[in-house]
Amino acid sequence: MSELRTVAWVNGRVRMIDQTQLPNRFVYVNLTNYGQVSKAIRSMVVRGAPAIGVAAAMGMALAAYANRSKSKDRILKELEAAAESLKASRPTAQNLFWAVDRVLQRARNASLGDNDIAKLVIEEARKMAEEDVQASLSIGRYGADLISDGDQVLTHCNTGTLAAVSYGTALAPIRSAVRQGKRVKVVATETRPRLQGARLTTYELLSDKIPVTLIVDGAAGYVLKRGMINKVIVGADRITRSVVANKVGTYLIALAAQASNVPFYVAAPTSTFDIKRESSDVKIEERDAKEVMYINGKRIAPRGVPIYNPAFDLTPVDLVEGFITEKGVFAPDSLATQSSLLQA
Amino acid sequence: MSELRTVAWVNGRVRMIDQTQLPNRFVYVNLTNYGQVSKAIRSMVVRGAPAIGVAAAMGMALAAYANRSKSKDRILKELEAAAESLKASRPTAQNLFWAVDRVLQRARNASLGDNDIAKLVIEEARKMAEEDVQASLSIGRYGADLISDGDQVLTHCNTGTLAAVSYGTALAPIRSAVRQGKRVKVVATETRPRLQGARLTTYELLSDKIPVTLIVDGAAGYVLKRGMINKVIVGADRITRSVVANKVGTYLIALAAQASNVPFYVAAPTSTFDIKRESSDVKIEERDAKEVMYINGKRIAPRGVPIYNPAFDLTPVDLVEGFITEKGVFAPDSLATQSSLLQA
Repeated sequence: MSELRTVAWVNGRVRMIDQTQLPNRFVYVNLTNYGQVSKAIRSMVVRGAPAIGVAAAMGMALAAYANRSKSKDRILKELEAAAESLKASRPTAQNLFWAVDRVLQRARNASLGDNDIAKLVIEEARKMAEEDVQASLSIGRYGADLISDGDQVLTHCNTGTLAAVSYGTALAPIRSAVRQGKRVKVVATETRPRLQGARLTTYELLSDKIPVTLIVDGAAGYVLKRGMINKVIVGADRITRSVVANKVGTYLIALAAQASNVPFYVAAPTSTFDIKRESSDVKIEERDAKEVMYINGKRIAPRGVPIYNPAFDLTPVDLVEGFITEKGVFAPDSLATQSSLLQA
Repeated sequence: MSELRTVAWVNGRVRMIDQTQLPNRFVYVNLTNYGQVSKAIRSMVVRGAPAIGVAAAMGMALAAYANRSKSKDRILKELEAAAESLKASRPTAQNLFWAVDRVLQRARNASLGDNDIAKLVIEEARKMAEEDVQASLSIGRYGADLISDGDQVLTHCNTGTLAAVSYGTALAPIRSAVRQGKRVKVVATETRPRLQGARLTTYELLSDKIPVTLIVDGAAGYVLKRGMINKVIVGADRITRSVVANKVGTYLIALAAQASNVPFYVAAPTSTFDIKRESSDVKIEERDAKEVMYINGKRIAPRGVPIYNPAFDLTPVDLVEGFITEKGVFAPDSLATQSSLLQA
């Protein structure tokens, strides 16, 4: 899976793996305007905080590319419209806002002629994709040091190649440890409602021949309690000084890891850190009831029952043993003092 | 729903609601021999600890009824064979073993002529069904005292009429509180893999016009943390002096309730208590991988991925605020001293 690119710029188009079709069909989609990118993020054709960050940057690049023959002012206006659309696609992942703002700032600050602005924006987006791969590899290297031969690692949702541009966040340390010759087994939660664990994490690990066992989300406490797990590693959508916003269900796993004295790690690039924020008032996206009500198009509950579908939850940072980033591993009590380092 | 009977003896047959077909179709099945009852328990046509206890007693009654013209010795032999089959159907729920042993003992100890033994066994099974309804009503009365007007109660799996003969265990206090005029809202977890919460709990509560909101299992921690829940009430499959075996996912909810200072109650008749047992080595049933792999006949994960599917988990009793039984509410530290009371 490490050779794949979840999101890529190919000849003036953005090519993505359509993650809604996995594991049954591996299909690329080619997008030609930022509206399509916003829609792809909203409908989770692309998902995973780093991946949607880069996808959004590529959406900005599409806006610039479509207007490459226009004036700089016009291009900036289009970029602002694109930024607004892309930021509205999903509210929780920090990477999305970081990526859009970075591209916008780069364009605004450039003292270039009309023609070169579009080129600059496209270059910036492609550079961010490459940086994301390098960040994943670096997270893998730092994280692999924490993994011992024979470890059984519990993970939640999908945090692999498909959640980033390649290699992943929480799966990166596992991949690196396996490359170092360590034997690692993974227990993956299915991750309702969208089943990213069942559909995507198992798919990636089977492809890479890393042993994986699937469990329902509710079984995470039991496997921890039974001593089947040595480490938990999850990803993140936003990390403030006090909480980790990540896929709903993460908080329960963190509590169970604490109760069983199993270290709980969060792996994320610094672009996921919203480190100036001290409070825990992260906006948690509430998604459509249909995501819970229908699985593969079949209804699972009585018609009309009210459903509450928060996509993420908040885990207090004091439940985290360490944050595995591309700049090293940070303890939760160092988040405030290391805040300059933890800004992407 | 309170007028329904999940399991009933009707003219020499055992009539059950086929719970695998709900909420889409409400169908009764009529069983004529104990082998069919064992199979119905195994395949979860009937499920819920009190319901499978009574179903097993009815299975014993079918064995006696089929041999009603035979000798007492012959009937006892048939009952022993039925007991073996029924006990092998599912390993975790205490009620199943309690019910089968009670019927067997009753038959063995009776000093009656050949003809009357079968009648006695059938009467005993029917009495146990009636006692179960009374126990549920009593759990409802004791439990309702713990519920305040305006409470939002989180529950897991299905613990209503369908989990017992009628009225239920953890849903009984809610039903009783509502009958007393208290306004109660329920948050129900979907309860993967078999979706008893999504399929059955919502169905029962919608039928009874009690407000219910469905969430995925992973969202339980978030709704507790957000202050959306005042009380948690769950059922149980077996309660020892140290642990509560209940539907997988219960332990995670108990941890999250503790972390949010929300009282966590377990509602169960005394027939669920295995109170002589001090250790926590309850046998946890591991069910077929297909239960996780297929939802409504559709595969949700890559073919061939290993799956671990424990049906229950173990919650330490010190996470429990109180045990709501038909004999009153017991604190966890009273389980040992009250053990004679807690034997059915």
